[in-house]
Formats: sequence, structure tokens, C-alpha cells
Amino acid sequence: MENPYKELKPSTRILMGPGPSNVDPRVLKAMATPLVGHLDPDFLEIMNETMDMLKLLFQTRNLLTIPISGTGSSGMEAAFCNVVEKGDRVLICVNGLFGQRMCDVAERCGAEVITANANWGYIITPEKVKEAIREKPKIVAIVHAETSTGILQPLEEIKQIAKENGALFLVDTVTSLAGAPVKVDDWDIDICYSGTQKCLSCPPGLAPITFSDIAMNVIRNRKSKVQSWYLDMTMIERYWGSERFYHHTAPVSMIYAFHEALRIIHEEGLENRFRRHKMNGLALKSGLESMGLRLIAQDDYRAPMLTTVGIPEGIDDVKVRKRLLNNYYIELGGSLGEFKGKSWRVGLMGHSSTKQNVLFLLSALDNILAEEGYKFERGAGVDAASCFYESFEK
Amino acid sequence: MENPYKELKPSTRILMGPGPSNVDPRVLKAMATPLVGHLDPDFLEIMNETMDMLKLLFQTRNLLTIPISGTGSSGMEAAFCNVVEKGDRVLICVNGLFGQRMCDVAERCGAEVITANANWGYIITPEKVKEAIREKPKIVAIVHAETSTGILQPLEEIKQIAKENGALFLVDTVTSLAGAPVKVDDWDIDICYSGTQKCLSCPPGLAPITFSDIAMNVIRNRKSKVQSWYLDMTMIERYWGSERFYHHTAPVSMIYAFHEALRIIHEEGLENRFRRHKMNGLALKSGLESMGLRLIAQDDYRAPMLTTVGIPEGIDDVKVRKRLLNNYYIELGGSLGEFKGKSWRVGLMGHSSTKQNVLFLLSALDNILAEEGYKFERGAGVDAASCFYESFEK
Repeated sequence: MENPYKELKPSTRILMGPGPSNVDPRVLKAMATPLVGHLDPDFLEIMNETMDMLKLLFQTRNLLTIPISGTGSSGMEAAFCNVVEKGDRVLICVNGLFGQRMCDVAERCGAEVITANANWGYIITPEKVKEAIREKPKIVAIVHAETSTGILQPLEEIKQIAKENGALFLVDTVTSLAGAPVKVDDWDIDICYSGTQKCLSCPPGLAPITFSDIAMNVIRNRKSKVQSWYLDMTMIERYWGSERFYHHTAPVSMIYAFHEALRIIHEEGLENRFRRHKMNGLALKSGLESMGLRLIAQDDYRAPMLTTVGIPEGIDDVKVRKRLLNNYYIELGGSLGEFKGKSWRVGLMGHSSTKQNVLFLLSALDNILAEEGYKFERGAGVDAASCFYESFEK
Repeated sequence: MENPYKELKPSTRILMGPGPSNVDPRVLKAMATPLVGHLDPDFLEIMNETMDMLKLLFQTRNLLTIPISGTGSSGMEAAFCNVVEKGDRVLICVNGLFGQRMCDVAERCGAEVITANANWGYIITPEKVKEAIREKPKIVAIVHAETSTGILQPLEEIKQIAKENGALFLVDTVTSLAGAPVKVDDWDIDICYSGTQKCLSCPPGLAPITFSDIAMNVIRNRKSKVQSWYLDMTMIERYWGSERFYHHTAPVSMIYAFHEALRIIHEEGLENRFRRHKMNGLALKSGLESMGLRLIAQDDYRAPMLTTVGIPEGIDDVKVRKRLLNNYYIELGGSLGEFKGKSWRVGLMGHSSTKQNVLFLLSALDNILAEEGYKFERGAGVDAASCFYESFEK
């Protein structure tokens, strides 16, 4: 039969938005491996290796450290719905879109949500948390790297406050994991989730998650069933654990890809990887500032893997991004919520975090902004970034 | 850094269990396509084509016909959690594991569940539904092909009863879709979901789903928010619809694979595909019976893509399946729940549904069962299947 739908041939892209990032060809190759069954002895071994490598990445010894069969947002939902019961008070730190989303997710789980707030682009201060914690929440939840603003949130003091008040500490590391240190055990994090499509450079579709023993005890002692059957950790742990009890069919090919992405991360080494993300992030920021552009996130707390940059007066957000995409094959992110139309989001995540990408983006922006009539010193961005690399590499 | 975790090299398998089935190499190739962003114009076009092809497969014009970003079980959860509100009465037909699962899922959504039952291996009779419908449920839910028993459930009369009583009709087609006709519009189905890893022969990880206008109206007029943020159709439809409003990052690579799997289905043609599944299913059944083995599912209602066969007295379930896997690379399914240890489940789904697989499995079983001391006429299974093919092909 003649097929009106043609084989897919999407354009080649340099993915420098807020995710997905580019994927190493090794990961694509792994994903194309022919399937085995989800209870096959070969697959069980792959699952074990995947859990081991994920523990190293989360820097934890938590037994229940696995990829959930859904995207990063399903990780957020799994984090809340397993520990929240109707009427539980939950303190959520809100300084961007993903903190807001946490409130929505937690409320749907029956939580009574209270918040500690900061303006978009600023960190949450420990003082705000201290104030809110008087209401004795069961959980304190916070986003490590706020993808909507480019802030990397310090966690130490807020963890301290949570722990002193007997609360579970829940952290979203969707954008930070594998691009900056995430030390689940050292930082006493009870529930930590991420996504595969950012600094892990694996296609979107899985949500790595880990639960401390304390969190697992809370889950095991629930009065009511977890409202989501699909994300119920008391059942999922029986499949990933030694029992291998069937729950749902694991997304075999995605786990192949994830296994290879983790192998690549550990070959590079965590410290090297964090250093690379830091270096490229700083080079980009130095280049953008030298072009006279304004960085949006609070100084000293800028995420290495995601940079928010103000769109200059008179420059058309969508037009510039379209030209970047069509002429340079570069995907840049627009902004969301309060920042919509006001800033771009530049991701340098995982496989996309390279010196070449930094210099290419700065050159492309140099050309496009000049043509759009933006006044600045031509070439200053690339020069500044190049200088930065020279001094950093010494 | 030396990596203790080696590149994955899982064994080659002929997947003849209850899923995943084998995947066409074209699908694996599509999945390895380099990524574009989830809001890339190229990806939006791929999404549109995917929805169009999925509508043809579900035989529906429903606008909201999309793949959910999770496995088949997430489709079941999405089906219930979007239409059920606390205290709603839901009638669930239970004659196997997946009917039971529906009860658990619906109860977690706050439903008051009532059931119409049949023994495992038998269809649900319209009489049972007529009896239960007196309690005026909001929804009547049923499994089309019960993967735990091998029953293919007739839907016409039960649909009639549901509709006459003003109930929504919700059908699980995880195992049937793309292997037997599923006519969503003709059969007045309001909510229908499936999985990708069975007769669609795409890796596990997505749940195709479709909602009728009536179902969408019910969702839009809810008094409470959908309890799952991740599966909330009122938000997901804004991403798949013309608005393209960001909800969660789509699993890009899985959708590439799904697009190619749908292309393959429509190249073969639905009628040809259903005929192939029917032919191979009947050939297998005729072979098994000629070996003196007992088919478990009720006569006249046996699913073409999944055959349950009794394990003869004195034959060790696990030992036989291990030998099939290790010596013949064939994966066969064990059974669950009431049938655990008593029957095997043989899947002939999608790319795995071939004459070659049928004959190879029958030969392999012939060898293994003879060695295990089972008394039967050697060669009878393969002979019967071969005869069947000759007469069918005429």
C-alpha cells in the first residue's frame, strides 16, 4: 500500500535550549539495540548495572535508586505522590516555574501547601525557609537548578533547617544532575529526582529518582494507598529489587540508552564533567556580557548549564530564535511565565556543553544582533570567551 | 577513566511472550535518529503525522488521539484519572489480571467500584453487565484482549448496555490494537488506550490513547482537578493541539519510533495485518492441540495474538521456558495470578507474528517436551500447523 507518510528526516540541530540536549551517537546506537523481554536474565543484569551507576551519579547508597518510566515531570509527581497523604502540610520554595509546578502537583496529591518565595531570578534565602518552617511541614521541597530562571540554589542551610524540624528534604535536580555536584547522602536529601534529557544527554523519557531509608519508611507506613498506581514505589521497588515482581513493562530501549549515557558519564568522571560544565558556562556568560547583554540570574548563583540572558530593547525574541534555528541550526530556548519574551535560555548541557558550541553561538548571535540593529562592539563576545578559555585552561 | 560497566550486548531473542514483541529494524533505526527539540517545527510536523496515523489505527475521528509519555499502564491510569471524580461509581468487568488492575487504579482515583465477573479464561457475558448496570455507574470499563488469559472479548452488546444507561464506555486495547480490529467510532468507545510494545511492535514506553467528545466534555466539566498533573488531559491537549503550550518534554526518540511503527502498520494495511495475526494464531493453536496440549481460553473467543496453553501434568514450567530461552532464544511468557505455573502464554504480536516463528516454536516445544517425558505423537504439532497454512493460503 502506498504510504502518504514519509520516513522521518528531521533537520540537524545543535540543541542549546533548556533540553533536550544533544545525545552522544553511542547513546543513539545503544537505543537501537534489538529488544529482550523486561524479565529476561540479560535485562535484569542491565537493570542492576543501571542502578549501580545511577547511585554513583546521585552520590548515594540508597537502595531504591532507579529510573521511573516517564519524563522528568513524572519524577516530580512520583516524588510527591508517594510521601504526601491528604492534609499533609508541605513547604515549597518558589522562585520560578518549576517551584510553582511543585505546588500544583503537591496540591493534587492532597497536600496543604505553604511557600517560601523569592523573585524570579533570585535564590530562596534560608531566612524565608526559617519563617515558613514554623508551620511544621512534613516536607520541605526545593528546585536545585531552576530551569526557568537559571539559578543554582545553595542547599546546605535550607537542608539544615528542614532536618532540625524533622521534615523530609525533597530536591528537584532535573537540570543540575550530571552537570553540577548533587550529593544526595552528604546533603541528607530524602527524595531526589531528575530527567534524562538535560545534563545526562540521554533522550527524554525517563526520570531518575532516589529515596532515602527515611523516605521509604514514610511510604511503607502510609495510611492510604499511593494515589498513582503507575508511580507507586512500594510496587515498583518489587520489580527493580531482587523479587522481580511484574508491575509494568519497563521501557527497555530507553533503559538501554540510559545505561550507555551513564557509562559515558562515568568514563568522563564526575569531577571532570562538572568542571567542563562550569568552564563552558562561564565562557558563555563572559562572552554575552562582553556583547553588552544582561545576565538575568542573581550574580554568584548562576547555573553553569543554563544561562538566562535578557533580550535587548527593540529586538524581537521569536525572530532571532527563528534565524538561529533556520540559518545556524541552533536551538535556543525562549522563556516561560514572568520571563516570557524578556529573556533567552541558553543550555550547555551534557554533550551540548562544548567550547565549539559556545563560540559558534556567540558568533551567530553577533551576526544576527548586528543585522537587527543592536549596538555593540562586534566580535567582543567571541573574543571574551576565547580569552576566558585561554586563562581557564592554564 | 577505566569503566567497569561494559557496553551492552544482550542476547538475540525471538520474543513470543506477552510483550514486548520483536521490533522491525526500521523502527530501531528511526529511534536512533538524532534529536530535535520538543517544540521544533520539524517535531511538530512529526507529532501531527503521528496523530493522523494513530486515528486511522483506532478507526476514530476523535481530536484527542495521542501517545501518552509512559507505558501501557500509564494509559490505564490516564483513562481513569481523567474521568473519575471522588465517589463516582465505576463498573469494571473482571475476568483476569488486567480487569483486577483496573479496579485498583479506579479506586485510587476515588471511584466506588462495582464489578461484573467471569472466571479466568471466560468472557464477560452481557447478562452480568445488565445485572450490575442497575447500580447506575458513570463508566463501564472492560478489557478487549485479556493478556493474562488469552480471551478476546466481544464488545457490541456490552457497549449497547452501557450506552442505553448513559455510561461512558472505556476499553483497554493494550494487547489487541493493531492485531485485531478496534473500531473506536463504530463501537462508540469513549476512552480507549493501548501500549506500543505488543501488536504495534514498537518498544515499550508509550500509551496510545483516544477520548471521544463526550469523554472530553466530562473532563472539561470536572468539579475537581485531575489528581495526576502528569496525565492531566486538559493540559496535554494544549501541547498536542494547535496551541503547542509546553506541558512536559515529549519523549522525542520514542515518538520517532512510534511514527515509524505506524508507517509500517499502514503500509501493510489494517485488514492484511489482522488477517496475518488471525492466520498465525490459528496455526499455532492447531499445532498445540495436535500435540495433545490444552488451550485454556474459552473456545470461539480466543485472541489471535495471545494463546494460553496448559502445562501438562509433570512438566516443569520454569525449566521448559529456560530451555526455550537458552537453546532456542525463544521467550515464552509464564502466567500470572490464578494461572501462575499452570499455563504458558504465547504471543504472536506484530513483527513476531510470522509463520516461521510458529513452526520454530512448535518444533522446539516438540523437542523439549519429548525430552521431558511428555507422551505425544512426535511431529504432530508442526504437521498440523503446516497443513493449516496450506489450507488457509488457498
